[in-house]
Amino acid sequence: MSTVSIPGYTYGTASVPRSPVTLQDLENLKKALLFTAEDERYLRMAGQVLADQVEDILDLWYGFVGSHPHLVYYFTGPDGKPLADYLGAVRKRFGQWILDTCNRPYDQAWLNYQYEIGLRHHRTKKNQTDKVRSVPHIPLRYLIAFIYPITATIKPFLAKKGHSPEEVEKMHQAWFKAVVLQVALWSYPYAKEGDF
Amino acid sequence: MSTVSIPGYTYGTASVPRSPVTLQDLENLKKALLFTAEDERYLRMAGQVLADQVEDILDLWYGFVGSHPHLVYYFTGPDGKPLADYLGAVRKRFGQWILDTCNRPYDQAWLNYQYEIGLRHHRTKKNQTDKVRSVPHIPLRYLIAFIYPITATIKPFLAKKGHSPEEVEKMHQAWFKAVVLQVALWSYPYAKEGDF
Repeated sequence: MSTVSIPGYTYGTASVPRSPVTLQDLENLKKALLFTAEDERYLRMAGQVLADQVEDILDLWYGFVGSHPHLVYYFTGPDGKPLADYLGAVRKRFGQWILDTCNRPYDQAWLNYQYEIGLRHHRTKKNQTDKVRSVPHIPLRYLIAFIYPITATIKPFLAKKGHSPEEVEKMHQAWFKAVVLQVALWSYPYAKEGDF
Repeated sequence: MSTVSIPGYTYGTASVPRSPVTLQDLENLKKALLFTAEDERYLRMAGQVLADQVEDILDLWYGFVGSHPHLVYYFTGPDGKPLADYLGAVRKRFGQWILDTCNRPYDQAWLNYQYEIGLRHHRTKKNQTDKVRSVPHIPLRYLIAFIYPITATIKPFLAKKGHSPEEVEKMHQAWFKAVVLQVALWSYPYAKEGDF
């Protein structure tokens, strides 16, 4: 993966804190959402299917966020207007996130980066990566709500490369599980002590 | 709806606290997950489809939880064994929850009851409704993770009454949105002040 050119993308580097969630916690969480080795295989297939469609997917997602003032709000600056540089910087990492969701092994480095992603949405670290003056925090309820659009809208893209309906469905279910799994992990910084 | 016979089911009664979430917050959240009036119509259709299948659905869900020690754990007593009365009491309300998800208007009474459901999973009120001595808290990560099984496993039941594949798909998408919406609301007691 060629990722050296993405500002603020620190996957696998020493600057990423260690996740407070253990690999055993992760295994138990995967069991709770029926995530198996078969899902890993279908995520790899999805990674190949989506690789050259990332910009189209981001166009769709950004169009969705941009069309709702109460969502684009989280990218606005002190004057209430969306910060174009901030939107652009996040977009590059969001594209990489699509590929990482499909292609990365869900190991300690991955777990650590999920923690980092959670922190970057939470008031702990929001805005720091891109050194912007935007609203300080994305609410937990929106992280959870986004499971729906991020899952539902990916399916047509999974169907665009001639795979059988059964393969598309299996890729889609694997993606759905992977999104839910990650949002569950991202909730860590939001939860009261002991509540996660 | 005949619900008078379900112990601890307090929907719409004075014992349910007022939700700290406003109806305007709810509208914004619905927009974030693309929930529309069409979804309400398909939820009503799903309510008719699922009405006489509730016990079969609960058998499946309880079988799933029961087969994973780290999940059934949240129903265990001081001796580490599952509390059959507790499982049974929750099961009746869980069945009613399926019907409420499909048939209730998502108004102030519904919003208040979502808050109550969140509290009953959280350490604030877990075990109180059924007066049991069980583990004190269900972690936030499992509330979120359960979006997957609760959504994925409902689809075959939606397909059992002869509706077209398109109708089944629309009922399923409406159900998916309704589950995500509710889990987002249930997260309130888990979030740090201002983080929800």
